[in-house]
Amino acid sequence: MKRHSDKPIKLTEVCLRDGSHVVRHQYSVEQVVTVAKALDDAGVPYIEVSHGDGLGGSTLQYGKSLVDEMTLIEEASKVCTNAKISTLLLPGIGTVHDLREAYKRGAGLVRVATHVTEADVAEQHISFARELGMEVHGFLMMAHSAPVSKLVEQANLMEQYGAGAVYITDSAGALLPSEVKERVKALRESLNIEIGFHAHNNLSLAVANTLVAIEEGATRIDGSVRCLGAGAGNTQTEVLVAVLNRMGMNLGIDLYKIMDIAEEIIGPILPSSQEIKKGSLTLGYAGVYSSFLLFAERAGKKYGIDPRDILIELGRRKAVGGQEDMIVDVTSELVKQKVEVINR
Amino acid sequence: MKRHSDKPIKLTEVCLRDGSHVVRHQYSVEQVVTVAKALDDAGVPYIEVSHGDGLGGSTLQYGKSLVDEMTLIEEASKVCTNAKISTLLLPGIGTVHDLREAYKRGAGLVRVATHVTEADVAEQHISFARELGMEVHGFLMMAHSAPVSKLVEQANLMEQYGAGAVYITDSAGALLPSEVKERVKALRESLNIEIGFHAHNNLSLAVANTLVAIEEGATRIDGSVRCLGAGAGNTQTEVLVAVLNRMGMNLGIDLYKIMDIAEEIIGPILPSSQEIKKGSLTLGYAGVYSSFLLFAERAGKKYGIDPRDILIELGRRKAVGGQEDMIVDVTSELVKQKVEVINR
Repeated sequence: MKRHSDKPIKLTEVCLRDGSHVVRHQYSVEQVVTVAKALDDAGVPYIEVSHGDGLGGSTLQYGKSLVDEMTLIEEASKVCTNAKISTLLLPGIGTVHDLREAYKRGAGLVRVATHVTEADVAEQHISFARELGMEVHGFLMMAHSAPVSKLVEQANLMEQYGAGAVYITDSAGALLPSEVKERVKALRESLNIEIGFHAHNNLSLAVANTLVAIEEGATRIDGSVRCLGAGAGNTQTEVLVAVLNRMGMNLGIDLYKIMDIAEEIIGPILPSSQEIKKGSLTLGYAGVYSSFLLFAERAGKKYGIDPRDILIELGRRKAVGGQEDMIVDVTSELVKQKVEVINR
Repeated sequence: MKRHSDKPIKLTEVCLRDGSHVVRHQYSVEQVVTVAKALDDAGVPYIEVSHGDGLGGSTLQYGKSLVDEMTLIEEASKVCTNAKISTLLLPGIGTVHDLREAYKRGAGLVRVATHVTEADVAEQHISFARELGMEVHGFLMMAHSAPVSKLVEQANLMEQYGAGAVYITDSAGALLPSEVKERVKALRESLNIEIGFHAHNNLSLAVANTLVAIEEGATRIDGSVRCLGAGAGNTQTEVLVAVLNRMGMNLGIDLYKIMDIAEEIIGPILPSSQEIKKGSLTLGYAGVYSSFLLFAERAGKKYGIDPRDILIELGRRKAVGGQEDMIVDVTSELVKQKVEVINR
C-alpha cells in the first residue's frame, strides 16, 4: 500500500472503553485486568479504559459503571509493561479533576472528544492534559454530519489548543470510503499533527474505511477486538492486523495472540454477537448515534411508526447526542403526516 | 459513484445455496419457500437454490441434504412471481442430467463453477445450459489464487463456451480491495460479456470489495442476507442495499423489506452468528477454502501443531477443494520442523 505518511501506524484498542457500552458498563476488575494484560502481551501500544461515554460517564443518564473507572485505569495500568493506558474525556461529562485523577492512576493518553462542530469546548481540557504531561488527542465525533470544510476548521482549533493528533470519529458508522478519503486528505493538507480515524462497522465498512484512512495518511487507528463497541462495533482489531499483515504492514501486534484474545478472552465477555442487525444497520444508514436507537424503537411502538423512519428523519436533522428528546417532535410529525395520508 | 458500466446491477441472493453450508444442508421445504417468497416480494431478481456444493452435492462426502434440491428448486420457483431461480453446478459433482432436471423444475439461470485454472471442464455444461435456453454464467472459484493473466485467460474460455457473464469468485474471502480492482479491470478490458463478483467476508471486506467491483464495471453481484454463507458468509445483502441506496444507486430491492427478512426470517434460521471468528479469519488470511478448516483443526489437535500454521502452509501451496488429504503431508512436515527445532 502506498501511504501519504511515513510515520508508523499506532493502534488504540477500545474494547475496554467503546466496548463498555456493550456490557452496559459492567466490566469487572478481573475482566479489565485480564484483557489489558493480554493486549499488552500481544503488543498493542495503547489500551483505552473508561466508561463508554468517557470519564465521569458513570451516571444514571449514561449508565452506572459496576466498578469506578479510576480503579479500572489503575488496575489496567499496573499490569501493562509496554502499552500506554488511554482514556476518553467528553467536556461536559468529564472534568479536569477527573483528568488529573486518571493521570495519577496511570492514564498516559487522553482523547478529548467533542461533537464535530464544537471543538472549542475542548480547549481547557487539552491544555490541562498537556500541563500534566499527558499525550493528548482531539476526537471529532459524528464527523459524517459536518461539511469537510467545517471538519478542517474544527481540527485546526484542536491543533491550536495543543492536540498531538485529531481523530475523524465516525460515531454512527455512516461514512462511505470516498467520504473517509476526502476527509483525511483535507486534514492532511491542513494540519501539522497526526491524523486519527475511529470507525464503526454499521455499514460493514470499518476495516475498509480504516485502510482508506491509512492510505490517505492517517497514522492513529482505533480498533476493537471482536468488534466490541457501540452499534455494530468498531474496526475489528484482529481482522485489521491480519489484513495489514497481508499487505506487508506490521503494527507490532502479534496476529495469533490477538486472534486468541478475540476467541478466548473477549468471546466469553460478549453478551451477544456483534453482527450487523436491523438496529445497527439503520443507525449507520441514517447517520444517527446509537443512543437514539432504544428511544426510537419505544416511540415507534407506542405511536405505530416504523422506528427506521424516525431514525432517518433524525439523521436528516443532524440530531446530536443528548438531543434524544427530539424523538418526540419527529415522531409526532410523522404521526401527523400518516393521519393526513389516511384522511386524504 | 462513477461506474465503468452503464448496465444495471443485478443481485443474486445466495443464502439458500451458499447458506446451505451453514445449516449443514438441512433446509426444509417450508424454510426455502418462506425465504424465497419474501425475497421475491422484496424485489430480489435472482435467488439461488441448491446444495451448497451445487447440484448433486448431496453426498456423504459433501453432506446429505435434508430435502432433495430438485424439490427445493421446484417449490421456490412456484412461489416467485418475478425472481428467477438460479442454481449452481460444479462439473464433476453435478451432471448435465441434473441440469436438465433443475431446468424442468424451474431454474432459469445456472452458474457453472470451476476452480480458477480449470474453466475447460465447464464447456459441456455451459453449452448444454444454452441449448436448454437457460441463462448461464461462469464462476471462477478461488480467484485470488491465480495470477490475473490466468484469470483473464480462463474467463475468456468461459465467454467462448457461451457464458453470459463470468464471476470472480473469492471463495476464501482472501482478496484485498486493490486485488479486486485489478481483476475486474483486467476482465473489463478483455471480455465482451458481463462481469460478476462473489465475495466472502472473512477479512471483513465483502461489502467494500463489492463496491470496488461495481465501480470497476462488475454488474452481477452476489449477496447473502445476514451473511448466511460459508466461512464468514458473503456480502451482507441488506447492508449492500443500504450502502448503495446511500450512494444513490437503486438495485430495485426494498430496503426495509430486505432488512426485515434478515431480522425476522433468516435470524431464526441461523444456527449461530456469522461473526468473523478465529477459524474464518484464518481461512481468509491463508486464502484457503472453508472445507479445510475442520480437517486442519483435527490434525492440529492430534499432532500438537497450531491449525493456523497448517492452513497458512496450505494457502502457500494453493491447495484446491478436494485436496483435503494434503493436510496430512503439511502437518507431518510441520511436525518434523518442530522436532528439528527442539533437537537443535
